[in-house]
Amino acid sequence: MELLKQKIINDGDIIHPDIVKVDMFLNHQLDIDLLDEMGKEFYRLFKDSGITKILTIESSGIAIACFAAKYFSVPVVFAKKGNNRNIGSDTYSTEIFSFTKASTYTAIVSKKYLSDNDRVLIIDDFLANGKALTGLLEIVKQSGAEVCGVGIAIEKAFQPGGKNLRDSGIRIESLAKIESVSDGKINFAD
Amino acid sequence: MELLKQKIINDGDIIHPDIVKVDMFLNHQLDIDLLDEMGKEFYRLFKDSGITKILTIESSGIAIACFAAKYFSVPVVFAKKGNNRNIGSDTYSTEIFSFTKASTYTAIVSKKYLSDNDRVLIIDDFLANGKALTGLLEIVKQSGAEVCGVGIAIEKAFQPGGKNLRDSGIRIESLAKIESVSDGKINFAD
Repeated sequence: MELLKQKIINDGDIIHPDIVKVDMFLNHQLDIDLLDEMGKEFYRLFKDSGITKILTIESSGIAIACFAAKYFSVPVVFAKKGNNRNIGSDTYSTEIFSFTKASTYTAIVSKKYLSDNDRVLIIDDFLANGKALTGLLEIVKQSGAEVCGVGIAIEKAFQPGGKNLRDSGIRIESLAKIESVSDGKINFAD
Repeated sequence: MELLKQKIINDGDIIHPDIVKVDMFLNHQLDIDLLDEMGKEFYRLFKDSGITKILTIESSGIAIACFAAKYFSVPVVFAKKGNNRNIGSDTYSTEIFSFTKASTYTAIVSKKYLSDNDRVLIIDDFLANGKALTGLLEIVKQSGAEVCGVGIAIEKAFQPGGKNLRDSGIRIESLAKIESVSDGKINFAD
């Protein structure tokens, strides 16, 4: 998606060869017109998949998922992190290792909001090692719902998550694929 | 806002006389059409205030803020909770006590995304004791920006936050004000 790539080039912040911060428009400040275009693009890609629910994980996935959900006319469910005393005990849950925070957290979804009748589109902001996405896939599996696909804003194609999960048969569509970052320049895969 | 009140009556879950859970449409699963209507209503209420930015706090404020921001055509900034090693050091920050979690956390906003040129609408899902809102007001104060108003989805009017902050001169608009919960029935203030 050209608009997103341009945003990454213009406003992304390379703070480490492996880390491109997009706090300016996606992870802290939110560019609403961009998010809306991203939602529209996910709809174009998955509109024929019979999606009944969009699953994401707090926090940075929520905004993207909401704008996509507007086009699909389906609800969003966001997985919660950590032990949430308000969510009740009847949950799907999984452990996710975060490289960013160098620790493991629990992701949970109430059984009320995901069932074997659902056809799920998973949406998240980043795909790198694939830990969060693997956790969300595990949650959907526990629910008996069907994963129809995965929509990612920014994939770091130089990390193994995308390849591994595609090899396992999951349809993953990333709006921008970063192939490498070298000499302060971001190179996209296509 | 009648639509929201009806949702609370039909789908809210009274798990304690003081706690109405709205996980079905606002805090875990998200009803996109409702959120869009809420965003539209906040725009109607604050459209003449010259808003340049919407400030909220992760996670449940993000979706509401995004739909409002679409109508205002301004960015959202969401305050992050805890020590976020990715956000950088140049931040506004404050401590917020959470009654739900019975603990204190740090809320931070990068100085890049809020300045004394901004006219801010603060949006959040709940107003009860007003701790989170007081924290967000403190962050705006640190930035030198002007708070033009506060938009709340659900106010628990039987708790003191709303009254105290209105008494201090802040304009607060709540889309549904719960006056009391008795015998399993939710009573609204108007």
